[in-house]
Amino acid sequence: MIYPYPVDHIRRIGQLRRRLTRAGLSGLVIHHLPDVRYLSGFTGSSAALAVTSRAACLFTDGRYTAQAAEEVHAAKVQIVARSVSEAAVEWLAVQPGVELAGFDPAKTTVAELARWKAALPSRLRRAFLTALPVPMVEPLRLVKDEDELAVMVEAALMGCKLFDHILGFIRPGLAEIDVAGELEHKARLWGAEGMSFETIAASGVRSALPHGKATMARLPRRGFLTLDFGVILKGYCSDMTRTVYLGKPKANERNAYHAVLEAQETAVAAVGPGVSCGDVDEAARGVLRRAGLAEAFTHSTGHGVGLEIHESPRLGAGQTTKLQSGMVVTIEPGVYLAGQFGIRIEDMVAVTRTGGQVLTPAPKALIEL
Amino acid sequence: MIYPYPVDHIRRIGQLRRRLTRAGLSGLVIHHLPDVRYLSGFTGSSAALAVTSRAACLFTDGRYTAQAAEEVHAAKVQIVARSVSEAAVEWLAVQPGVELAGFDPAKTTVAELARWKAALPSRLRRAFLTALPVPMVEPLRLVKDEDELAVMVEAALMGCKLFDHILGFIRPGLAEIDVAGELEHKARLWGAEGMSFETIAASGVRSALPHGKATMARLPRRGFLTLDFGVILKGYCSDMTRTVYLGKPKANERNAYHAVLEAQETAVAAVGPGVSCGDVDEAARGVLRRAGLAEAFTHSTGHGVGLEIHESPRLGAGQTTKLQSGMVVTIEPGVYLAGQFGIRIEDMVAVTRTGGQVLTPAPKALIEL
Repeated sequence: MIYPYPVDHIRRIGQLRRRLTRAGLSGLVIHHLPDVRYLSGFTGSSAALAVTSRAACLFTDGRYTAQAAEEVHAAKVQIVARSVSEAAVEWLAVQPGVELAGFDPAKTTVAELARWKAALPSRLRRAFLTALPVPMVEPLRLVKDEDELAVMVEAALMGCKLFDHILGFIRPGLAEIDVAGELEHKARLWGAEGMSFETIAASGVRSALPHGKATMARLPRRGFLTLDFGVILKGYCSDMTRTVYLGKPKANERNAYHAVLEAQETAVAAVGPGVSCGDVDEAARGVLRRAGLAEAFTHSTGHGVGLEIHESPRLGAGQTTKLQSGMVVTIEPGVYLAGQFGIRIEDMVAVTRTGGQVLTPAPKALIEL
Repeated sequence: MIYPYPVDHIRRIGQLRRRLTRAGLSGLVIHHLPDVRYLSGFTGSSAALAVTSRAACLFTDGRYTAQAAEEVHAAKVQIVARSVSEAAVEWLAVQPGVELAGFDPAKTTVAELARWKAALPSRLRRAFLTALPVPMVEPLRLVKDEDELAVMVEAALMGCKLFDHILGFIRPGLAEIDVAGELEHKARLWGAEGMSFETIAASGVRSALPHGKATMARLPRRGFLTLDFGVILKGYCSDMTRTVYLGKPKANERNAYHAVLEAQETAVAAVGPGVSCGDVDEAARGVLRRAGLAEAFTHSTGHGVGLEIHESPRLGAGQTTKLQSGMVVTIEPGVYLAGQFGIRIEDMVAVTRTGGQVLTPAPKALIEL
């Protein structure tokens, strides 16, 4: 009973089958672990799933015999003592009615494909395996179902609770890793499986590093502290950033903060079904451009999040992908002035039928500690 | 000053160049991040490195401008607003004297390779890029240099110190995640960047799950608790497992523990330069076979460890790879009896010129708490 929440894997595999049929394929090998987990519920570190129009079989190794029996209900399970993906491909090759099996070219290495082909009977080597013309699992994972949204809300709210807790912990002289360690410890005690990425705690001039992982550097008496962190709950990632100030900010620091906040809120307000990702990015970028900070905003506005911390879509300049109800994305503009300071504010936002719902309702007004 | 220890990246790139030349290649694109870090020192989450016989250039994005300038001294740095690996391939294509550039087929997806080819001028699409016939960076990383060994010793000893600490913390009724959380929190406070994998804390019947991640399950009054955990220090992973007993073990539990311990110590004693990985595996497996536990040992004996938690070589049945001085491997036999209990004992062992040096000298005699 590792993850005792109900998920309809049979329905997900059914959706996948309809896509396969539409693409003219009779089989598919899936070995990207988040995809395997999404479709089968299996959480182990070694697995491949083979799906045909009639059958589905998960391949894993002897370490996971008991766990696979417990977790996997929508597919058969085979325990193998060799490459799980090779076993999946060989299984597909002997399934009745399977003439053409797809693989995901974005998740399959050149070496793997060569090994799969070598494992097939020679008559099948040329034409049995084909790179998927379009992603098959990603479009399913992109739009979260109710089970997923419920878990993601829970994960996002744990992030907010952690932020609230850490506000009472932060003081000048602590190391950045003390702050990160406290966040991570509380997350664990509150039931997180882990953090969704290495916690960013960047203080003082280090806040100008967009990805400044926590170091032994001491929190200053006066300066920004950017905290970007997330938890993993039942496999799903949360992601949020808040930037707080220790001491009294100078006018230029306060102005920059307000520009980032306005950019962030403008982009959040732009989220809605049918809106292009590029337009959401431009909503944030336009505000920072008008504030003379366009050059200091060196990354894109956000990304999808779910079983992985970075998923499609990417909310960057010129991205034409349209948001759909059920997607969960981050909105996280920031400005970085090398040698001075940096600021980033990030929420997770679920796209609803009418707009966007912020999942991380922690305070965003400038907090002075 | 994120990782203020001296590493001779120029020497490592020089070693790589000699390998390239021997393979008849004039360029190489590297985009597996641990390889990029090993060769250049860059620790960001987006990078590709291009190396020719005369030049080396690291490509990353605008989030890492300051960090790349700080960390990278053995290569030029280019900040790009597009795919870093495409930028690296295009750069290689215009370097004087570069006729044939290699890529690592084990780290390059089918889709990436197609994009790289599409980014090249049409006259170069067919013959400029070639899959490396043999790994180029892996053989370098396999054998740790003095800088690496010093850090790995430090990481391994932190693991031992954590185990010693946790012995005073464990008591019946705590949740597995309380134990994992305490380990992880202390690791952070002692300077670890994070854990090298999701901490395994599997108690009672859950100890029979070889990869039983910590859950809300409570530690029993009587039963095994397996702890398998590692820290990341300056990028390098530690990895160790100890299995302790809460209460008084039954005779069959004690016997099984002693069989695993004997298997583990026999395999550690077998480690040495020139010994095949399969022979080390057989040293452990033979002991468990004679104890009637062969079927219960469901995985291989160990694996290499370094910048990644799982590296070559694999110490499994029939593996003919020979150990070399400077390799660091785990030795971790275990037995798993579904519905009853499981036991695993694991050390990190450095291969020396004369044998093996255990890097994780924490007690292995059965501890009853």
